[in-house]
Amino acid sequence: MTPQQSRLVAAVRSRFGARSVSTDPDAIAPWLVDWRGRYRGAAPAILSPGSTEEVAAIVALAAEYGVPLVPQGGNTSMVGGATPPADGRALILSTRRLNRLRRVAQDDGLIVAEAGVILQTLHDAAAAVGHRFPLDLGARGSATVGGLASTNAGGVQVLRWGTMRALVLGVEAVLPDGQVHDGLAALKKDNRGYDLDQLLVGAEGTLGIITAATLRIVPAVRARAVGWVGVDSPHAALELLRRAERASGAVESFEIVAGHSLGEVIRHIPDTRSPLAQAFAWHVLIEAVAAGEGADDPQRVLEDLLAGALADGVIGDAVLAASEAQAKAFWRIRHSLSEAERASGPAVQHDISVPVARMPDFMVDDAARVERRFPGTRTAAFGHLGDGNVHFHVRAPAGVDGPAWYAEEAGAITAYVNDLVVAAGGSISAEHGIGQMKVAELARLGPASRIAALRAIKAAIDPQALFNPGKLVPLAGEEAQP
Amino acid sequence: MTPQQSRLVAAVRSRFGARSVSTDPDAIAPWLVDWRGRYRGAAPAILSPGSTEEVAAIVALAAEYGVPLVPQGGNTSMVGGATPPADGRALILSTRRLNRLRRVAQDDGLIVAEAGVILQTLHDAAAAVGHRFPLDLGARGSATVGGLASTNAGGVQVLRWGTMRALVLGVEAVLPDGQVHDGLAALKKDNRGYDLDQLLVGAEGTLGIITAATLRIVPAVRARAVGWVGVDSPHAALELLRRAERASGAVESFEIVAGHSLGEVIRHIPDTRSPLAQAFAWHVLIEAVAAGEGADDPQRVLEDLLAGALADGVIGDAVLAASEAQAKAFWRIRHSLSEAERASGPAVQHDISVPVARMPDFMVDDAARVERRFPGTRTAAFGHLGDGNVHFHVRAPAGVDGPAWYAEEAGAITAYVNDLVVAAGGSISAEHGIGQMKVAELARLGPASRIAALRAIKAAIDPQALFNPGKLVPLAGEEAQP
Repeated sequence: MTPQQSRLVAAVRSRFGARSVSTDPDAIAPWLVDWRGRYRGAAPAILSPGSTEEVAAIVALAAEYGVPLVPQGGNTSMVGGATPPADGRALILSTRRLNRLRRVAQDDGLIVAEAGVILQTLHDAAAAVGHRFPLDLGARGSATVGGLASTNAGGVQVLRWGTMRALVLGVEAVLPDGQVHDGLAALKKDNRGYDLDQLLVGAEGTLGIITAATLRIVPAVRARAVGWVGVDSPHAALELLRRAERASGAVESFEIVAGHSLGEVIRHIPDTRSPLAQAFAWHVLIEAVAAGEGADDPQRVLEDLLAGALADGVIGDAVLAASEAQAKAFWRIRHSLSEAERASGPAVQHDISVPVARMPDFMVDDAARVERRFPGTRTAAFGHLGDGNVHFHVRAPAGVDGPAWYAEEAGAITAYVNDLVVAAGGSISAEHGIGQMKVAELARLGPASRIAALRAIKAAIDPQALFNPGKLVPLAGEEAQP
Repeated sequence: MTPQQSRLVAAVRSRFGARSVSTDPDAIAPWLVDWRGRYRGAAPAILSPGSTEEVAAIVALAAEYGVPLVPQGGNTSMVGGATPPADGRALILSTRRLNRLRRVAQDDGLIVAEAGVILQTLHDAAAAVGHRFPLDLGARGSATVGGLASTNAGGVQVLRWGTMRALVLGVEAVLPDGQVHDGLAALKKDNRGYDLDQLLVGAEGTLGIITAATLRIVPAVRARAVGWVGVDSPHAALELLRRAERASGAVESFEIVAGHSLGEVIRHIPDTRSPLAQAFAWHVLIEAVAAGEGADDPQRVLEDLLAGALADGVIGDAVLAASEAQAKAFWRIRHSLSEAERASGPAVQHDISVPVARMPDFMVDDAARVERRFPGTRTAAFGHLGDGNVHFHVRAPAGVDGPAWYAEEAGAITAYVNDLVVAAGGSISAEHGIGQMKVAELARLGPASRIAALRAIKAAIDPQALFNPGKLVPLAGEEAQP
C-alpha cells in the first residue's frame, strides 16, 4: 500500500467504521479478476461506503490524496471494465452496501434504487407491485443498478423498451471533486443545459460514481406468445420484423439464429430439439406480450402476423409455443447459443452493431468476406436483429490447436471485423462497452473527432484521472504501470 | 467589423461564393432581434454555408481568427438563445441553406434532415409517406431542425413521444475545432463511451453546430378523439391521467386549463365558448389517437375512460368532440391561452417543471404562496400536466401601471417562483432553455455541482468560447462587452 492509500484507508476506517474497509487479501481476491478470468488486477483494499454521503466523503479524500478509485458492482463486465489496474495503485470502491430501494412508486411508473441493488432484486420489487423492469440479462443475479447504468446495458427487450439509457430517468452520482449530482427527481422536461444524467449513463465510471438511479417500470406481462420461424435469409427476417412493427407494439423480442448455430445447440445442449421439422438457413425467435388493461391478445397478434407472412412467402414455416413449457424450450435454445458455440470449439467473439437496415447484408456478405480472408474459419451471427446488434463469432478452422490459433489470429480477425463494422457505419461495441478490452481498437478506429471529444470531457470532469483508470479513454499516464 | 471578422468574411466569400455571406445591414437587421423583441444584438455579417463541409471550413477559420459564431435557425427562441451579443464581436452563422431532406426512410422509421429544414417541411415530408413527426409547436413555420434539437424542444405530444431528445436518433455537428461529429447512422446500440449526440441535444449551440439530424417518424394518425373534461382540482386531473396511462397507450395529449383562464379566452378570443355548460375550477383537454394497423378506436378509449372516471367521481363532467370542427374548437381554446392571458393584462411568465406527482400541489399550494407574497397578483397555470410542465403566469394586480409594475416586480416574482420550483425539486427551464434570459438565475440556483460540470464541459469542448457566446453557461470574459 502506498502512503497515500494508507492514509485514505485509515481515514475511511476511522470515519465510517470497520465494515467500510476490507484489506484482507482473501476477501479482496475474487474482486481482482473479471468473471471470465481474462483480466487480473491488484488492489490493496476495497472500500464499501454505506451511503451517498460516505461515497462523497471518500471521493473527496481520494482526490486530496491522489488515490485512483475503481467503482465495482457485480463485477460482471465483459470487457474488464471493473477490474483494477495491475499495478495496485487504485483501490476498489464497492457499491455492495448501497443496496436500498429508496422508493417504489408504481403510480408514477418508477423505482429509485441505489447502485448496489442487484437486477434480480429490482425485478422482484417491480413484480411485487404488479409491474416489471423491462431489462433482463444472464447476469441478473449479480449485475447491479450502478453497473447496468454505467455500461448502458441492453438485453433481449431493447426492441421495445430500449437500453438502460431509455430506462434511466435520472441518476445520483458523486463527481470526481466529491460533489453530488442529484438527478433523481427525473423531470420529464428539464432544459437547464447539458444532460448530465445521460452523460453518466454508459460512461463506465470514468466521470462519476453512480450511487442511485430513478428507473422506469412498466405494467407486468399478463400474457405472452412465443413463436419460432424458419426463413431463408436475414433479409426475410428483417421483412418479418418490419411487418411486426407495423402491426403492433406488442412484439418485445426478435432474435435471429443461424441454422448451423441451432445445430450446435442440438448437438451440445441436452434435451434440445429443433422447433420446426424442416431445416432452414435462418431462424427467428419472436415474442409478443400483453401488458396493461386494454392490450391485444399476443397469441392473436403473432398468429395474424405469421399467417400473413407465410401466405406472402416471406417466411418458410412457423410454430407458436402451445404451452409455457414450450415457450421456455424455445427461449432455452436462444440462451444456450453462447454455451453451444463455446462447446463447438474456439472462436473469436465480437459484440457489434450496424444500422438495422444494413444488418442482413452484414450477416451475409461481410460474413463471407471474413471467411474468405481467414480460410477455414466459419462465422456465426446471432442475436438482436431488431437492434442492429449481433454476436458475431469467428470459429477456428477444423483441426487447429485452439489456444495457438487464438493467440496467432484473434487480433487480426478482430481488426478485420471491426474494419468491416466501421465501413458499414456501425459500432465496435454495441452492448458491452469499451472497458480495458477495446481501448486500443477504439483509439485506432475513432473517429478522431470522437476520441478527442471524449478525452476532452474526461479531462474536464476528472482532471486527476482518478475514476476507473485505464478504461474507455485513458488519459496520458493513466495506463497501468507494470 | 474587426480585422479578424473582415478576414473571415473575405475568406468565406472567396471560397464559397457571394451567397454564403451577407453584410447588408437591411438584410441582417431582422436577425439581430428575437421574435418577441426582448433581446437586441449586433453582427456585421451573416454567414450562410451551403453544406456541412462549408460549415466545418468556416468554423476552422473562425477558430483560427478567434471570431465567435452565433448559430441561428428560425430565430424563434423564447430566451434570446439565437440573438448575437450586443457588442458585435460575433458573426451569425445561419443554417438557412442547409435545407435538404437527405433521406426519408419510412421502413426504418426515420428521416435524415439538415439543420435548416423547417418543422412544417418535416411534417409534410413525413405525411407524404404515411407517417408523422410527433412534435409540434406554434412556430412550426419558422423553427428549424437544428434549433429544435439544440433546444430539446417539447410541445403537446411529449406525454407519448417525449421531447426532441427522444426523437433525435443521432446528429451531425461541427465541433469548435472544425471537426465533424457524424452520429447520423443512428445505431440503436452503441456503447463507445459518452453519448455525444445526446450531449449536443439541448446544448443551445454552445458545444457544436448541429448540421443535420436523424429523426424518428411514426405512423400517421388514422383517427383521433378529443375530449373536454371538468374537474375540481389538479389532483383530480392527475388521477384521470393515471387512469388514462393504465388503460391505453393511445392518449397523446393531456393539457390542463384553469377555469379563470378559460374565462379569459372566452372574453378575449372571438368565437370561443366553454365546451361544458357547468363552471369548473379546472379543465382538461385530452386527445387519443389511432395509428398503425391494429390500434384501438380512440373514441372508444376516451368513452370508456371518461365514463369510468365520471362514475367514480373523479371528474365532474366531460364531452367528446362530435366532429373534427369541434375537436379543432377545443384545441383552439388551448392554443389561445397565451394570447388571452396577454390580452387580460401584464403578467410575469415562467416555463417550469416539477415531478409530475408534485405538480398538483404546486399549482394549488405554491400558487397560493405566490399570491400571498405579492398581494393583488393572481396566478394562472396551464399546460402539460402529464409532463410536470406548466406555463406559470403571475398577473399584475388590477389597476396598476403595467410596464412600471413589471419593471418593479418581475425580478422579485421570478426569483420567488424559481425558489419554490427548486424547493419542489423542479427545473427553472422546462421547455425553452436558458439562452440569455435565464443565465443569471441558472447561476444563482445551480446547484453548484451542476454549474461546475457544465462549465467544465463547455471549457473542454470550446476552450476559446467561440460558440454562441453569452448563452447558457458563459465562461469568464464571454459576456457581451458594452
